Amino acid sequence: MFQNDLLAGKHVLVTGGGSGLGKSMVKRFLELGAEVTILGRRENVLQETAEEFKDLGPVFYQTCDVRNPEQVTEVIDTIEKRRPIDALVNNAAGNFISPTQMLSHRAVDAVLGIVLHGTFYCTLELGKRWIARKSGGVVLNIATTYAQSGSGYVVPSAVAKAGVVTLTKSLAAEWGKYGIRLNAVAPGPFPTEGAWERLLPSEEFGEKLKSRIPLRRYGDHVELANLASYLLSDLSGFITGDLIHIDGGESVWNAGEFNILDELSPQDWMKLAETRKKG
Amino acid sequence: MFQNDLLAGKHVLVTGGGSGLGKSMVKRFLELGAEVTILGRRENVLQETAEEFKDLGPVFYQTCDVRNPEQVTEVIDTIEKRRPIDALVNNAAGNFISPTQMLSHRAVDAVLGIVLHGTFYCTLELGKRWIARKSGGVVLNIATTYAQSGSGYVVPSAVAKAGVVTLTKSLAAEWGKYGIRLNAVAPGPFPTEGAWERLLPSEEFGEKLKSRIPLRRYGDHVELANLASYLLSDLSGFITGDLIHIDGGESVWNAGEFNILDELSPQDWMKLAETRKKG
Amino acid sequence: MFQNDLLAGKHVLVTGGGSGLGKSMVKRFLELGAEVTILGRRENVLQETAEEFKDLGPVFYQTCDVRNPEQVTEVIDTIEKRRPIDALVNNAAGNFISPTQMLSHRAVDAVLGIVLHGTFYCTLELGKRWIARKSGGVVLNIATTYAQSGSGYVVPSAVAKAGVVTLTKSLAAEWGKYGIRLNAVAPGPFPTEGAWERLLPSEEFGEKLKSRIPLRRYGDHVELANLASYLLSDLSGFITGDLIHIDGGESVWNAGEFNILDELSPQDWMKLAETRKKG
Amino acid sequence: MFQNDLLAGKHVLVTGGGSGLGKSMVKRFLELGAEVTILGRRENVLQETAEEFKDLGPVFYQTCDVRNPEQVTEVIDTIEKRRPIDALVNNAAGNFISPTQMLSHRAVDAVLGIVLHGTFYCTLELGKRWIARKSGGVVLNIATTYAQSGSGYVVPSAVAKAGVVTLTKSLAAEWGKYGIRLNAVAPGPFPTEGAWERLLPSEEFGEKLKSRIPLRRYGDHVELANLASYLLSDLSGFITGDLIHIDGGESVWNAGEFNILDELSPQDWMKLAETRKKG
Repeated sequence: MFQNDLLAGKHVLVTGGGSGLGKSMVKRFLELGAEVTILGRRENVLQETAEEFKDLGPVFYQTCDVRNPEQVTEVIDTIEKRRPIDALVNNAAGNFISPTQMLSHRAVDAVLGIVLHGTFYCTLELGKRWIARKSGGVVLNIATTYAQSGSGYVVPSAVAKAGVVTLTKSLAAEWGKYGIRLNAVAPGPFPTEGAWERLLPSEEFGEKLKSRIPLRRYGDHVELANLASYLLSDLSGFITGDLIHIDGGESVWNAGEFNILDELSPQDWMKLAETRKKG
Repeated sequence: MFQNDLLAGKHVLVTGGGSGLGKSMVKRFLELGAEVTILGRRENVLQETAEEFKDLGPVFYQTCDVRNPEQVTEVIDTIEKRRPIDALVNNAAGNFISPTQMLSHRAVDAVLGIVLHGTFYCTLELGKRWIARKSGGVVLNIATTYAQSGSGYVVPSAVAKAGVVTLTKSLAAEWGKYGIRLNAVAPGPFPTEGAWERLLPSEEFGEKLKSRIPLRRYGDHVELANLASYLLSDLSGFITGDLIHIDGGESVWNAGEFNILDELSPQDWMKLAETRKKG
Repeated sequence: MFQNDLLAGKHVLVTGGGSGLGKSMVKRFLELGAEVTILGRRENVLQETAEEFKDLGPVFYQTCDVRNPEQVTEVIDTIEKRRPIDALVNNAAGNFISPTQMLSHRAVDAVLGIVLHGTFYCTLELGKRWIARKSGGVVLNIATTYAQSGSGYVVPSAVAKAGVVTLTKSLAAEWGKYGIRLNAVAPGPFPTEGAWERLLPSEEFGEKLKSRIPLRRYGDHVELANLASYLLSDLSGFITGDLIHIDGGESVWNAGEFNILDELSPQDWMKLAETRKKG
Repeated sequence: MFQNDLLAGKHVLVTGGGSGLGKSMVKRFLELGAEVTILGRRENVLQETAEEFKDLGPVFYQTCDVRNPEQVTEVIDTIEKRRPIDALVNNAAGNFISPTQMLSHRAVDAVLGIVLHGTFYCTLELGKRWIARKSGGVVLNIATTYAQSGSGYVVPSAVAKAGVVTLTKSLAAEWGKYGIRLNAVAPGPFPTEGAWERLLPSEEFGEKLKSRIPLRRYGDHVELANLASYLLSDLSGFITGDLIHIDGGESVWNAGEFNILDELSPQDWMKLAETRKKG
């Protein structure tokens, strides 16, 4: 429903773009006219994705471990020799679903390293360049619905993503004067074949999760990719520093104490109505 | 654990102070040395409460429907002829637990009227007086954990309490220069005999609610009353414009997507650990 | 940059749609294929707007004071006899810029009445209908950047808009299962000729406001209208319960304590760097 | 105004407790009956503070760089051989006031390391112990007013503190069932001799900062220390997962768009009132 040139003329860098939601965004950016460079740690994954999408538009890749700031600088140097980067999507992530007391400090560092340090390094490196060359730029950070609310059992990820959200707001305030916009999105459940099953403890748990989504369905990758495209494009030129939730209402449902009353039947409500009182 | 004179020298007005949590606050304020005037709609309730507490300290009451701004002005006039008011606790409330589409606009107005308009009228009336006489003053608003998050099935209350939270923040910013402090508290489940049972649809639902409270218990009225006392006292003289949650962690538990994993057993975690992956 | 049929097939009701930002949204909705009905209190304003836009698409109007719930029901009845409503934009608003202690309770009620009660009545009336006829529906509420943060000097508006934001979240959680989506937007400064000058105390104040916007410009009405169109359209079908800021970064700038350091020169930073310390 | 035994029987560990606000908290905890162990990097500072307070109660110290997880484990081991720790105050911090693009990735890592990793390591280490020995425990994290809002010019600190706030909420939800409570406080300006002057770019800037605090004064260290004591004590036994602001209203003032109207005189308001309109 966007015109096909929404992202024409833009060179977008997508970290973690070889698989999952990152890959879906890469596809959509290409369809909408962008040139895309994908970063990731596994060359074969990147190569396959680039190969798969090569007819959609100009797509390149580069291996990079975003936890290593010197490597980030080098890789961006290499990429920009081909073409300057206009937009950055910080999508690379790691997560452990586990009781926190079962985690080692190394597990904590692994998640903070990819999600928070990696995002900070990439953003800092490109920000310095955009400010120096007065080009402006756009950043989109992939956060999560539990970044600011917090959540047990995914604590390093929650903590790191909270940092990413605050990075987004802070630099939107500070760097707006250089023509740099930054936004974040908080995707709810967007299953990726394979990854989703491994992540969830059981099928019943999956059903339970779905019953907590007001719209009663999971997201479709293209829905997130469209939102991301909107936020990278000039169409959203006055939006900066915001965190946008795309989760079928899951986060507002969870947060509201009485939403579990969804399980009451009309009969229950009738009974309750009889005893209804101001309290 | 406070010294007994924490609120000595203060005249506190408590709306809806004849029963429930309001009554428990009144008791504690008296124990800590305050003079208290209770507002409420039902004279017999107010009279009984005043009678019950008369040995604890000076306690007065006045009937008042806070939805009526002229009445609010008159009643405060009457009270201040006896003694100027130093602190206001906006505690009067109404609520319906119901699917929203089953509510009439009259039900909506009833809740907004007591909770939001009533709080605004009382605060405005006393604020005008405190500013005019340069006395300063303190306001404590009783909000709820679902004020800013929202919640289905209690929507008029959620909406009204959200307004109350924003009133708190707005006037803390604007009126601080007049020595007026305003804070709000968001109490989680603090059962009151009678009211609690009528409010909940079933006993099982009560158990379910409790399992969602990290501390695995309900609050004790005196815990809220102590927090309220702290916030009215000079001990909290640099705190203004804040919303403090006292809910055993219920609201952070609800808001965090993966907290429902509480139900997994250690065995489940072992199984999951084997398939653990970064995702 | 949207395809021209983004809103084709939708009948959108816009309150306060005869002037200002409401009018700009009406224009854009028509361009994107919607049928629009405008509500407002002044018939001549509505008539002129409808006349002005009549070549863009099917546009109708109806006078209505949204503070009157019976009138809201009647007017929606009348409109739906022509064609059922698919989407609602609650845009009608009122505001006073004033020290709060200078306001009467009537001024408070006037703003709460239009912004909060009016939004609640319209949403409740349409929600009941959408649920009864199982059609689903979409609501977009026009909030403000100071709804949840609060702000002095516009307190009734802040309070009412906070209620509107919580209404959005609450009903998104409760009504998602009926195929109803609700979102809110928080527009920053989008000057409307005439209104803007009257609202601001002075020209210098206008300049000061602009210096607090990271992107160093005001918003263009079409930018808000595009965001509104996106949120009404199926393109955003997985987004519900969210509040999206479109303000050039103004709200994140204001909220961040150290953003006033924008005024330091490079020389100042050099000097400061010499004394830089971890603290 | 607390009774003197508020913290009797508690052994409190305070990171960064040798100077500044940490030192002021240590003093108050001792006065209220706690045993305190101070962590810090500089032995001479720790030794002086311990010496200064030795008549107030049992005070010990241990050098530790909280960025080093192995060291954190060892040091806590050593301390607990003397006496198990009941409460942890994560107060150690670092900050740079600087345009972000002037920072190296090493500067970023330095701040994230102390504030976020350090807090995570200490909390994880003690949480594991408290859960294993079924003792429960209490954590207080020192956050900042710009943790969730973000702020330019202090971005690594903002980002790290945001992570700390989310750590607080996440573990409050997950670990409440083990009798562990976690809260955070966001202090506004509490000047410390020496540090304050070095931090601020100029005296005029200090005056400007003060004019943005509704209560028109800075905080007194003992006010924060009292709040911290309340949150560590059993008096706050039902509060967990919360972030409490103690800042004289600074953060609500900053966040509210129209609070800069504080600078208007009564004459300005008269003029404005004449042109007042609903808009």
